[in-house]
Amino acid sequence: MNVRVGVIGVGMIGQDHIRRITQVLTGGSVTAINDVDAARAGQVAAGLPGATTHDTAQDLIADPNVDAVLVASWGPAHEEQVVAAIGAGKPVFCEKPLAPASDACLRIMDAEMAAGRRLVQVGFMRRYDAGYRAMKATLDDGGIGAPLLMHCAHRNPSVPPYGFTTDMIISDSAVHEIDVVRWLFGEEIAAASVLRPRRSGRAAADMQDPLVLLLEMASGVLVDDELFLNAQYGYDVRGEIVGETGTVALADVSEVTVRTANRHGGRVPVDWRDRFIRAYDAELQDWLNALAAGTSAGPSSWDGYAAAAVTDAALEALRTGQRTAVVMPERPEFYAKAT
Amino acid sequence: MNVRVGVIGVGMIGQDHIRRITQVLTGGSVTAINDVDAARAGQVAAGLPGATTHDTAQDLIADPNVDAVLVASWGPAHEEQVVAAIGAGKPVFCEKPLAPASDACLRIMDAEMAAGRRLVQVGFMRRYDAGYRAMKATLDDGGIGAPLLMHCAHRNPSVPPYGFTTDMIISDSAVHEIDVVRWLFGEEIAAASVLRPRRSGRAAADMQDPLVLLLEMASGVLVDDELFLNAQYGYDVRGEIVGETGTVALADVSEVTVRTANRHGGRVPVDWRDRFIRAYDAELQDWLNALAAGTSAGPSSWDGYAAAAVTDAALEALRTGQRTAVVMPERPEFYAKAT
Amino acid sequence: MNVRVGVIGVGMIGQDHIRRITQVLTGGSVTAINDVDAARAGQVAAGLPGATTHDTAQDLIADPNVDAVLVASWGPAHEEQVVAAIGAGKPVFCEKPLAPASDACLRIMDAEMAAGRRLVQVGFMRRYDAGYRAMKATLDDGGIGAPLLMHCAHRNPSVPPYGFTTDMIISDSAVHEIDVVRWLFGEEIAAASVLRPRRSGRAAADMQDPLVLLLEMASGVLVDDELFLNAQYGYDVRGEIVGETGTVALADVSEVTVRTANRHGGRVPVDWRDRFIRAYDAELQDWLNALAAGTSAGPSSWDGYAAAAVTDAALEALRTGQRTAVVMPERPEFYAKAT
Amino acid sequence: MNVRVGVIGVGMIGQDHIRRITQVLTGGSVTAINDVDAARAGQVAAGLPGATTHDTAQDLIADPNVDAVLVASWGPAHEEQVVAAIGAGKPVFCEKPLAPASDACLRIMDAEMAAGRRLVQVGFMRRYDAGYRAMKATLDDGGIGAPLLMHCAHRNPSVPPYGFTTDMIISDSAVHEIDVVRWLFGEEIAAASVLRPRRSGRAAADMQDPLVLLLEMASGVLVDDELFLNAQYGYDVRGEIVGETGTVALADVSEVTVRTANRHGGRVPVDWRDRFIRAYDAELQDWLNALAAGTSAGPSSWDGYAAAAVTDAALEALRTGQRTAVVMPERPEFYAKAT
Repeated sequence: MNVRVGVIGVGMIGQDHIRRITQVLTGGSVTAINDVDAARAGQVAAGLPGATTHDTAQDLIADPNVDAVLVASWGPAHEEQVVAAIGAGKPVFCEKPLAPASDACLRIMDAEMAAGRRLVQVGFMRRYDAGYRAMKATLDDGGIGAPLLMHCAHRNPSVPPYGFTTDMIISDSAVHEIDVVRWLFGEEIAAASVLRPRRSGRAAADMQDPLVLLLEMASGVLVDDELFLNAQYGYDVRGEIVGETGTVALADVSEVTVRTANRHGGRVPVDWRDRFIRAYDAELQDWLNALAAGTSAGPSSWDGYAAAAVTDAALEALRTGQRTAVVMPERPEFYAKAT
Repeated sequence: MNVRVGVIGVGMIGQDHIRRITQVLTGGSVTAINDVDAARAGQVAAGLPGATTHDTAQDLIADPNVDAVLVASWGPAHEEQVVAAIGAGKPVFCEKPLAPASDACLRIMDAEMAAGRRLVQVGFMRRYDAGYRAMKATLDDGGIGAPLLMHCAHRNPSVPPYGFTTDMIISDSAVHEIDVVRWLFGEEIAAASVLRPRRSGRAAADMQDPLVLLLEMASGVLVDDELFLNAQYGYDVRGEIVGETGTVALADVSEVTVRTANRHGGRVPVDWRDRFIRAYDAELQDWLNALAAGTSAGPSSWDGYAAAAVTDAALEALRTGQRTAVVMPERPEFYAKAT
Repeated sequence: MNVRVGVIGVGMIGQDHIRRITQVLTGGSVTAINDVDAARAGQVAAGLPGATTHDTAQDLIADPNVDAVLVASWGPAHEEQVVAAIGAGKPVFCEKPLAPASDACLRIMDAEMAAGRRLVQVGFMRRYDAGYRAMKATLDDGGIGAPLLMHCAHRNPSVPPYGFTTDMIISDSAVHEIDVVRWLFGEEIAAASVLRPRRSGRAAADMQDPLVLLLEMASGVLVDDELFLNAQYGYDVRGEIVGETGTVALADVSEVTVRTANRHGGRVPVDWRDRFIRAYDAELQDWLNALAAGTSAGPSSWDGYAAAAVTDAALEALRTGQRTAVVMPERPEFYAKAT
Repeated sequence: MNVRVGVIGVGMIGQDHIRRITQVLTGGSVTAINDVDAARAGQVAAGLPGATTHDTAQDLIADPNVDAVLVASWGPAHEEQVVAAIGAGKPVFCEKPLAPASDACLRIMDAEMAAGRRLVQVGFMRRYDAGYRAMKATLDDGGIGAPLLMHCAHRNPSVPPYGFTTDMIISDSAVHEIDVVRWLFGEEIAAASVLRPRRSGRAAADMQDPLVLLLEMASGVLVDDELFLNAQYGYDVRGEIVGETGTVALADVSEVTVRTANRHGGRVPVDWRDRFIRAYDAELQDWLNALAAGTSAGPSSWDGYAAAAVTDAALEALRTGQRTAVVMPERPEFYAKAT
């Protein structure tokens, strides 16, 4: 089966997903394009034989040649577009965040529940990374006993000197660990705290970088997450789960070991693409496969909502300096198997 | 573009390539099947909508719905099938060996040169492994200076207790290193010797396992290759190139590090699929991409011939216990850019 | 020169230091023994040709055949014994803690300052570990830029099922990190907090294990220290300093890598002796060398006091759940070069 | 007990042993010095309170204040000095080689057997390295099954541009592996071959560097030993034993892992002192301890002889290009427990 995908938003990430569908993955094609920048939409469509452009997201969603929708527009537009796709009964892959505000996420959930079946997959791609998957398999197999703690680090070499705020360290970077620890441990996050270590002189003047985010899982498992956006030396994502009888950690990802100039060692990835490209591929292939099979897969609207609710608490904790409880309703039965 | 592939031979490896083309890669479909076992051909075709079966390889090659041919039959049939595909002007991917006998490989080369363009890619997939590619990149970038030596090990956990001969350690296992060192160093192999270490008690009674194959490159670079088919502990492929100013080695491929019971460490692959599945994917995607672009890529008929010629020398060295020179003609200009 | 050492307290650690002085190190001998258990003192002395026993610590200190005193008695006795040695003008090596109470440490400092020269070395042996020394060298050489954070883990396989309290996780275990981070960063600790992760079911019923201790250095460097006394899998001390341009971490300490049963990896130490025996050797050799040279070396009374003051704050933080500032006077000029 | 050592030969290695005995180890002192360069002997003695100089090695051996002799003179002088020490009934530690010629080693053995007790320890210090000891323990515990192969590499950053001949790669460098594999496997070496890889342009014009030495153990275990004296990048000694069910390899010896500039990794030692200093310490302490206990330890005269006999065969193999059998008599019962 070939899934005909309509793509809303063809900035960097949208174009990368188009490349993925047309040049890497199997089972999908891109048949329609929409972007707030009509010229950009036209340029991208020009490289895609058979793809048409639409003036509005609504038109794209209504296009009978579109089986499924990929939303890669900017966050504030997500709610309207995802709800419209749900309304049209079309499956939708929505890049993170599902919506910037948690109440918008709740409205998406309501629309999906009203539609009566799962239609939304949220773009939390770390769940598809071979390292995190092996980590979860080790944990689930009982190889290290019950989990007690997790240590994470999320280091970027640098961020642009302006436009990237301290809040964005939580909402754009930490959101990845927020989702992945919910998935790893199969439970919700109960509270968040934020610590402010010594600032790096390499960070912009108004930016508190690094931060340490503390997450308390419902069971008491404690997660510490070092977030360092100007770490200079590379893009480095680390994680170690400490269990009652052992630990499991992400391994380094270098293909070769080099010995020169009195050093031996491997490389550190240069950026998130370098580190997670295969996870992005696997994520979208999983979406296409589920569509072909008529099922749903991957992170759900509930996962998108939960990430937003925890982000809210973490931002509050950043502002106040206080441990902040996460406020969330019970998970609806509809999403029981979602995580 | 969609390349319509006809597959000759649908045993384990043929079926795996079909799975790859239909479920993993982009740009190809399987439209025709042939196998000496017609019932098996029918069963495989039954799972492929739109695929037809052919009584003979010749019929499959002639099928106008076949753009390109994938040969995964047993080795002795390769020559006739590959030559026929060339004769029909259709590109052909041929699993290793190109042909068991080096003179058969020469005849394939003659047919291809007569056809006037490169039509054959041989299935030496290690060239597509991320580890070997990083190793070659390090070497080519001058990171370790001119190469002088290479140490290899090729360990399988076990082979069937009968049917696997000592000769096959050379022809089926070592052939991978024979090809990959030609590619890594960009030069031919001049001579081969075989050493017989202490036998493992785990090997079949009539099998000399392990072996050490010594390969002398034209430049003098010396390659030692430990071949151990009953290594028990896992499937482990190792390699280290020693250059004038440093070394580069394949890294371990474990996704996580586990600490339990007073040990820390990672996993060793269980078999060749586990270790090289991505390389097989990349190899065949490269073939499909080249076909779509109207070009050729990957290991050529010359590479298939050279591997056969070195295998001949290594088998002679195994029989006689003597260093044996590789006998090869000059590489035709036609294949100048092949390696 | 041969330093004649009198040893007060010949329990496990005292006997181990005697073995060290007599069988491993150079430049010292054990000439006098005292223990609250006179029978034990006699037994130990019987194995030491030329060593005499003394009924009291005071007698031992006064013995003209004792050049220097090693205090390995229980903590509450340290103050009186160390002050007496100072009073006699004899150098003293005091096992940690210098004294359980910080005010007792202050009185020792007063006595030493009154004596006019440094006479006390405190037994914080991690400063002599090759790993921590290489870490400090990397930091001091500017190899990772200014330090911002440090992640520590201190894992014991198990502690006795009774008698080991949650407070002792701070006072007996964390005290090692408390000292070593002061030394690594060359600055004092300003505040402490304690987090309570999910309890391990392997810990005694009344014990909160693991804990996470947060230490804020005067400069803002934030240290998190996972303390896990029932980690089962081995004795594992980890540390990573994150600087503005890179990180430096303690490496694993395995001598060999083993590949068996689909795993590759190394060993984890079984206990603190296994991990730190060379550091204990180096520590005491440094003391003997300094005595021979007429100088002083190693952790000072000030370091012993600072560790006690931080321990006080951390225990308060454990009790109250609050971040607790460390209360300390200025470091006297007398100890300016001590750290 | 204090062993009074007389040192014959106070060049670099002799002076290093003196430093070791006087400043690092316990149980020994240096009481007498002899050197062919009387001025150098005097200078060294001047720094050793109580040490006297002797005009001849014979005088030193006869000195009643000398309990045991350490021979660190040049190789051709060893036979006469060691035999003289044996004749005087004094234990002797002889730096490698025991003697350059194997027949000289046999004469030393004859003298020792005539004396009726083991008096000679030869300075093969790798047996005392923590890595090799852990490797042997793994092997002896059956952890990898019966050994079949061993891969070794012995890399120096560089050697002086003149004066270091190709022969010396065998006699001075490979001799370490020659001894250590005899000890690891507990058996003799039956034959040697030498391979000549591509020459490094960094080697002196008349030097074949690197070499590969192949050693066949009596049981058939095959050892390949890459010898590369101008490897530039560091001093790197590698080893991996391949057994029937697993492998054991020397681990890297870096104390810390550093992450900077898109690399992670550790250091490679700069020279043999850096790599093996602890092994030298342990070797000489073992000698002193054995003397104190009235026993003997470590590599024997037989081991010194066997190393010479294998070196003879390897040099012959280097000259002729042929596999060369090692010619050795049966090991005398007197040395039965020596290896």
